[in-house]
Amino acid sequence: MSLTNLDLVNQCDAFPYPAADSSTYLASVNTYYQLRVSGYNYALGYMLPSVVEVFRGVPNWEIDDDARILVLTAGSNAEERSKAVETTLLAMRETGHFKVLSKWRGELYAVYGAGKELLFNVERSASPLFGVVTYGVHLTAYTWKDGQVKIWTPRRAKTKQTYGGMLDNAVAGGIASGESPFESLVRESEEEASLPEQLVRSKARACGTVTYWYVRDERAGGETNLMQPEVQYVYDLELPEDTVPKPGDDEVEEFYLWSVEEVQEAMRNGQFKPNCALVALDFLIRHGILTSENERDYIEIASRLHRKLEFPTL
Amino acid sequence: MSLTNLDLVNQCDAFPYPAADSSTYLASVNTYYQLRVSGYNYALGYMLPSVVEVFRGVPNWEIDDDARILVLTAGSNAEERSKAVETTLLAMRETGHFKVLSKWRGELYAVYGAGKELLFNVERSASPLFGVVTYGVHLTAYTWKDGQVKIWTPRRAKTKQTYGGMLDNAVAGGIASGESPFESLVRESEEEASLPEQLVRSKARACGTVTYWYVRDERAGGETNLMQPEVQYVYDLELPEDTVPKPGDDEVEEFYLWSVEEVQEAMRNGQFKPNCALVALDFLIRHGILTSENERDYIEIASRLHRKLEFPTL
Repeated sequence: MSLTNLDLVNQCDAFPYPAADSSTYLASVNTYYQLRVSGYNYALGYMLPSVVEVFRGVPNWEIDDDARILVLTAGSNAEERSKAVETTLLAMRETGHFKVLSKWRGELYAVYGAGKELLFNVERSASPLFGVVTYGVHLTAYTWKDGQVKIWTPRRAKTKQTYGGMLDNAVAGGIASGESPFESLVRESEEEASLPEQLVRSKARACGTVTYWYVRDERAGGETNLMQPEVQYVYDLELPEDTVPKPGDDEVEEFYLWSVEEVQEAMRNGQFKPNCALVALDFLIRHGILTSENERDYIEIASRLHRKLEFPTL
Repeated sequence: MSLTNLDLVNQCDAFPYPAADSSTYLASVNTYYQLRVSGYNYALGYMLPSVVEVFRGVPNWEIDDDARILVLTAGSNAEERSKAVETTLLAMRETGHFKVLSKWRGELYAVYGAGKELLFNVERSASPLFGVVTYGVHLTAYTWKDGQVKIWTPRRAKTKQTYGGMLDNAVAGGIASGESPFESLVRESEEEASLPEQLVRSKARACGTVTYWYVRDERAGGETNLMQPEVQYVYDLELPEDTVPKPGDDEVEEFYLWSVEEVQEAMRNGQFKPNCALVALDFLIRHGILTSENERDYIEIASRLHRKLEFPTL
């Protein structure tokens, strides 16, 4: 296997783009159902018809097959809607309707409206059923050694249910509803890499977002082809030479301190978790390592790492 | 006047986006004609109908009014096509058809196909008539002083025909056909800011691209509403405290060494040339100055600064 950097982007940002010729795009979009909440006339996510079918006749939900829309009809505020969503999902988990629900996390993700208001919370494992935008933090930890940048690269535990044994960014995690990106980063840095809170608070630097539209495959576990549009808040952290990240839980097997060439080779070999490869590409571009001189698809990659998602975001 | 950062983005990235509800977008796109070259069945740019009208009956051009396409029929290679385009434009300049052609630059811009091959060159001042993608370099020069980042900010000469008296990035210029981004940067850095070649070659760092779809207004000079989708290769250059950029030609009036707050205030007051404000926003995001904590529209801005253009790019 030898993947180009654009191949890596295509693997993770897999939903088609509306082009000047928009027929392919429209044909693709029209395969799905929109998720909406009552009173808001825009889509919050795209759902597979096979998923929508399971909501047919379920209280608090209405399906408009002509317009291809699933509407959450219950509730007039976030709390009421969240309760209705939870009730539905708990019942579906009970009846074993969806494989993804067997990985119930007990963590809530936020779904926002066009005015950035919270519309409802949804159990993390269920979010790809609805195809709503989810939010995470990814940190690249690096060290200068002998005049070269070295990147701390963890390998995920082989026993991890999703992307087991694949390479990751130094710290990565989902943002729970109500948590700020930076507080999420501080928490995850301690949990996953044993990085001291004070170091992260004083030295981690926000560097933008990486956004993409993932379509889930087998490696993600559960149903495939579910939509997962994501926003990753990216951070850089330059570590002193004597600071070594250590697995803080059982999710990481080992941390490697790799040269840029070693990271790039592992990327070409498809060893990185798909979205982590994108965060690594963003790092390499921002730090002048990937340039228009050495990367044929520089312009396209720089755009694709920052996809404008078609649903409201925070 | 008090512009938000998103207002600044909207001013420069002004062409509508295809949304989940794509009717507004399609209505807008269908106003224009596509520019194509014979044998390539995709758009290279969007043109106003009033501009296309002037090409009616002109040798080497064909108009398909039903499909709304203007085709360059002449030539089977870049040289022949470029010659045909030049012949047409020189004639149109002679007859005074377009105001933009009165600012004839004698510089060629490259237009690329989907395989990144050169399709033809076009006189710089004419490129917005065709709505093709153009390429430039923008450099942010900064200095650390008293523990604070200061940004070198030039004011354009009041006599400059376009955006006279407005604020700019330290170095900015268009990339001529056949020139590499980095060589263009080195040349412009010397011409516009008197920055020594050796300093730029050794210290300027490529940091990605800023891409947007500008729609020209009065300040750009000539016809308004012409399409100008652009790719800017962005570079950062940290200058030693004792290195002071100086106007190297008559295009710049003066360089200010401004704090981030001073830059942001000038942005809010609409003093920056529109695309330079975007490059400044990209700098502030990459350097952790604008964050999700202090910028309400952080996610949207990070995406919009990296628009995926709908035409082939290099």
